[in-house]
Amino acid sequence: MSILLSHADILTSVDGRFKTLKDAYLGIEGNTIVYIGKDRPKTPFQKEKMMQGKLLMPGLVNAHGHSAMTLLRGLGSDLNLQEWLFDTMMPIEDRMDREDIEAGRSLAMLEMIASGTTMFSDMYMYPEDAVKLCGQAGLKGNFSRVMQCFDPKETYEENGRGPLNNSYFEVYNDSYDGRIKIDYMIHAEYTTLPEITRSYIADANKRNALIHTHISETKKEHEECKEKYGKTPIEWFNDLGAFEHPAYVAHCVWVEDGDLEIMKEKNVTCVHNPSSNMKIGSGFAPIVKMLEMGINVALGTDGAASNNNLNMFEEMHLASVIHNGYTLDPTVLPADTVLKMATVNGARALGRPDTGSLEVGKKADIIALDMDKPHLIPNIDTVPLIVYSAQGADVCMTMVDGKILYEDGEFLTLDKKEIYAKVERSLRKLYQ
Amino acid sequence: MSILLSHADILTSVDGRFKTLKDAYLGIEGNTIVYIGKDRPKTPFQKEKMMQGKLLMPGLVNAHGHSAMTLLRGLGSDLNLQEWLFDTMMPIEDRMDREDIEAGRSLAMLEMIASGTTMFSDMYMYPEDAVKLCGQAGLKGNFSRVMQCFDPKETYEENGRGPLNNSYFEVYNDSYDGRIKIDYMIHAEYTTLPEITRSYIADANKRNALIHTHISETKKEHEECKEKYGKTPIEWFNDLGAFEHPAYVAHCVWVEDGDLEIMKEKNVTCVHNPSSNMKIGSGFAPIVKMLEMGINVALGTDGAASNNNLNMFEEMHLASVIHNGYTLDPTVLPADTVLKMATVNGARALGRPDTGSLEVGKKADIIALDMDKPHLIPNIDTVPLIVYSAQGADVCMTMVDGKILYEDGEFLTLDKKEIYAKVERSLRKLYQ
Repeated sequence: MSILLSHADILTSVDGRFKTLKDAYLGIEGNTIVYIGKDRPKTPFQKEKMMQGKLLMPGLVNAHGHSAMTLLRGLGSDLNLQEWLFDTMMPIEDRMDREDIEAGRSLAMLEMIASGTTMFSDMYMYPEDAVKLCGQAGLKGNFSRVMQCFDPKETYEENGRGPLNNSYFEVYNDSYDGRIKIDYMIHAEYTTLPEITRSYIADANKRNALIHTHISETKKEHEECKEKYGKTPIEWFNDLGAFEHPAYVAHCVWVEDGDLEIMKEKNVTCVHNPSSNMKIGSGFAPIVKMLEMGINVALGTDGAASNNNLNMFEEMHLASVIHNGYTLDPTVLPADTVLKMATVNGARALGRPDTGSLEVGKKADIIALDMDKPHLIPNIDTVPLIVYSAQGADVCMTMVDGKILYEDGEFLTLDKKEIYAKVERSLRKLYQ
Repeated sequence: MSILLSHADILTSVDGRFKTLKDAYLGIEGNTIVYIGKDRPKTPFQKEKMMQGKLLMPGLVNAHGHSAMTLLRGLGSDLNLQEWLFDTMMPIEDRMDREDIEAGRSLAMLEMIASGTTMFSDMYMYPEDAVKLCGQAGLKGNFSRVMQCFDPKETYEENGRGPLNNSYFEVYNDSYDGRIKIDYMIHAEYTTLPEITRSYIADANKRNALIHTHISETKKEHEECKEKYGKTPIEWFNDLGAFEHPAYVAHCVWVEDGDLEIMKEKNVTCVHNPSSNMKIGSGFAPIVKMLEMGINVALGTDGAASNNNLNMFEEMHLASVIHNGYTLDPTVLPADTVLKMATVNGARALGRPDTGSLEVGKKADIIALDMDKPHLIPNIDTVPLIVYSAQGADVCMTMVDGKILYEDGEFLTLDKKEIYAKVERSLRKLYQ
């Protein structure tokens, strides 16, 4: 199947820089972009879609999250971290069964698709269910049986998560036409133990798989790791072999200069989660310094419980302004840097160098913005307009691998009513 | 004309606290709310409007802005403040004529109405045109011939702004059924001179009118005032009599403890502009301290040039999270405090104690949110859902004084096409 998107403004990339073509054409053959240009292509396409007044841009990559936590959205707002996490989140989360997790995850997919996310990383339970949901929804996703361990006597086999993830890797990695990846995710240094983690990492390295974990999100966690092990979380993971292949790690709010050196040397991506870091008072990650050093920085929403939504336009906006305010310098994080964080940098982090920008030969992971909105006028400079002014609700089409998942408010691969009903059932059970 | 809004969720206020009624009724007689309750009212209404799945909440108050700067949206993004302001903004602004300003202001009104703002303060030229536009649009607004003076030899009469504003006050204050107020706005300490400002303030005080100005937005401006006059901007204005009646002042990023004491004593409202303060790198205003002291804090967008939009939902979100991140404490600015900043506190600042909350006897300044959105599920706690999750685009109805201005994407008092055409014309002229 081939399709030509006609008369759209197109945010393409040329030599790693964004460039906007006005009233242009984008041709897709199967799952791949085969043409971008100002002139009508000479080769025919099976279908043509008129896109006047729309801006085509790369789909957004949400590089860190916990999808099923949509069910906990807004729960325990404005409490301190301890009360929020231990007294409010965890008791409900403990009651969430496999069905509830599916409901929450489906709701997350609706939300992400409607606000222009085409690929996401998901650290949550039942990855085998997530794979199928994501596959059916048409999205791209990275999943894992997440490593956690609190019992020093437990063997790798007894813990079971590693062997299970190996089997998931065999079955699901690169499934659904390569839209699915199985990563090796470790919750965090403070929720696991060294030897078992070393084995898990070794299994990941054998498969050349991606490692993903939380790193130095809070000062407490960072300092306690140093006390316990005499090293920072980055050093701890590095010593366990976690960074022998490209890894992506979330937060990095309290990383130190030595940590940044390791991240640079070992090609570790930082996933910045500005809404979550602000909302739960974690602090300001040294993103500006990372970017100056050439460290890859991606963007994520974190779970809806600490955000409280899964809207990458909001993350872009926050990332683009908070560091200016913190450093008292409006030039530290230009709009094109932020848009790259949310697209091509995220794609690189999640092991998909074949997407993240609109270029011939790349996968057709494309969103369209409806530009007929007062807040999108004037369009003097498209990239700042996207980063500072556009909203998730401006997305009028979401396409992954050339397939339209969402258009003009309608979901084409997911049944919104059915998902709402499942969510409703789970909520009644959890909050009764 | 009387109208009953039926089967809506209603965010009302009881004894100064928000309370949500589910599947409830709100009755309006003329411009006033006459009934709120769970039960169908016994008295008849001329019209009934079904509002299933909608949340009614108070219209938002944008307490500081420069409406016509929508024409400069996105201009000179990511430059430092000097280059942005003097080399980029001002040359274009100098070329903006009365027609351009009308076009930009109309675009701002479209944007504000569509994202749930029902009242705004506008510091910009040609207030007499603004009054008419705002009157016709059906919004509520505070306007002024803004005081500026750079020539120490100029008399109050020669400067002319004061006498002109007096005449505007006579003609327009409380016009359009009280929807319009004429304030006495002074651009800032650094763009005026003491004696002329004293006269302007005296004229304001004679009329019991509101004073509005920029205060201590940047560190540079704050320190230079201290060097020049031996006092802070707040002290400078206070000594000129600006705070003899309630005043509202924008930014207050660099105010000192003594300034806060004055603000508290003199009942001065701070208008916090989080997007603008972050984006142009001004810094973090001590909002938390102000609230602790009982100082009234409202919210504003500032101009679209430094934001880059006029979306009060975004301001609420930013205000609610950035101070947590800055203080490393997630409890410092609860959602209900932030929602009050954007509603009742703003109404109080702009001299409208008769609006800002949904209560019997208050003006019917109401917006409806369409709750049928994945990101608004679950609705565990309505106020945090509004502040942390809702988006400007969720607004499906905007009503002022009982009159619907916007519904389901349609503007009922403004001609969007005509405004777009005017904006297009101005942009062609300004950016050619």
